[in-house]
Amino acid sequence: MKDLRPGTVFLIGAGPGDPDLLTVKAVRALGRADVVVYDRLVSPEILALAPTQAERIDVGKLPKRHKVPQDQINEILLRLARQGQTVARLKGGDPLIFGRGSEEALVLRGAGIPCHYIPGITAAQGAASTTGVPLTHRGLATGVRYVTGHRARDASLDLDWFSLASGDTTLVIYMGAANIGEIADNLMAHGLPADTPAMAVSAATTPRQQSVFAPLNELAGNAVIADLPAPVLFVVGQVVSLGAETAPVQETSDHVLAQV
Amino acid sequence: MKDLRPGTVFLIGAGPGDPDLLTVKAVRALGRADVVVYDRLVSPEILALAPTQAERIDVGKLPKRHKVPQDQINEILLRLARQGQTVARLKGGDPLIFGRGSEEALVLRGAGIPCHYIPGITAAQGAASTTGVPLTHRGLATGVRYVTGHRARDASLDLDWFSLASGDTTLVIYMGAANIGEIADNLMAHGLPADTPAMAVSAATTPRQQSVFAPLNELAGNAVIADLPAPVLFVVGQVVSLGAETAPVQETSDHVLAQV
Repeated sequence: MKDLRPGTVFLIGAGPGDPDLLTVKAVRALGRADVVVYDRLVSPEILALAPTQAERIDVGKLPKRHKVPQDQINEILLRLARQGQTVARLKGGDPLIFGRGSEEALVLRGAGIPCHYIPGITAAQGAASTTGVPLTHRGLATGVRYVTGHRARDASLDLDWFSLASGDTTLVIYMGAANIGEIADNLMAHGLPADTPAMAVSAATTPRQQSVFAPLNELAGNAVIADLPAPVLFVVGQVVSLGAETAPVQETSDHVLAQV
Repeated sequence: MKDLRPGTVFLIGAGPGDPDLLTVKAVRALGRADVVVYDRLVSPEILALAPTQAERIDVGKLPKRHKVPQDQINEILLRLARQGQTVARLKGGDPLIFGRGSEEALVLRGAGIPCHYIPGITAAQGAASTTGVPLTHRGLATGVRYVTGHRARDASLDLDWFSLASGDTTLVIYMGAANIGEIADNLMAHGLPADTPAMAVSAATTPRQQSVFAPLNELAGNAVIADLPAPVLFVVGQVVSLGAETAPVQETSDHVLAQV
């Protein structure tokens, strides 16, 4: 049996959607990959940054549209690395913020496979940059907090509501579309005012971005928000009052950037 | 008087330190700037990405080592833009996370100057990627929170301690070196266990990075931490137990990346 030196796995943040929001380091690692293992939400434009001949493995969905289970993804990464391949493991956003990058790294390192993290712009930052809603702002928010609004099947939302309903902190909710009504109700029940400014942002930083502004108590009942395509990010807090209640500025920004 | 069209200001996140952690968009905007207005913590390597002939204005310090006041920075940006120049306003980390980018944007937009945000990797993400400490991890942290430990002169630390002492959330403290003793004491007084894993990271993602691991109740008394050069970031939470208590992996990572 051949004594092969294992390949390296790069756990790479693909950012919020716009390919130009990848880091230089991410682009470089992607360009040198033998194989790319990617999640849902990683766009064709980003995959195109890998060499043409690199194998591309979609673990965001199976033929029957189910997500590949995490332990199966781990097995795929182990197998590829043991073949001596350089693996680009591409995740939306940042691999260490709701990306399960550290779960994969623990498995890989436990098996003696070298792996490295490359951070990415997380959706909150992308949405902030295109909507004009800052995540902190003097006098409006002394900090920012990211939580997930997703819950395991049959489980209740296990969140510390008293802590979350803190008016001086911007609250960003990832994966919250299915439970935004329950989340908003709980935040209000624990003291956050009903008229706290909030917004929903769909497909932030992509040409398909849509943003909708509404006070906290109207988030769940808003028909436009209910119809937004995934992924949807919610931002709650006084900072939202600074956002432009306009169409996405992304195209304008690119346009300007292309001209300078 | 000449009727000049105002230039555009790009409020750009320069990331945590490593120039390769700038986004592609940031590098492009920087490369087309007529003038760069930059903060302390933006390295010479990053400034070198601007055209050689671009003017460089350091607003991080004055000759007598005082920081340029914010209203004076605003005036500089207005003046340059009104001259029709394309301005790259470079800030460490992300312009909308403790970066005061939105304060500058409000002034510029109020004066009719076009301005755009380009997000950056914030220090917490940089430190996570190089220390191996994730910001969220199933079973250890359901979310992450960034706060500032800085206080205005003579003011007390105005933080919501009950909310902050939430054991299921990773707490990242920016600009907290001067007050870490008071911060740790308050977190413990409000319920966070004394043995909560914590770390201090200095100059994350740069060749000068140092990280020190210590439980919450030993952060303030640790002599090595007290001597760490600025900027120092603190991370508190169960996720820290996953960090490598080793020398920075940054150089190793770059080395590997250079080889692939």
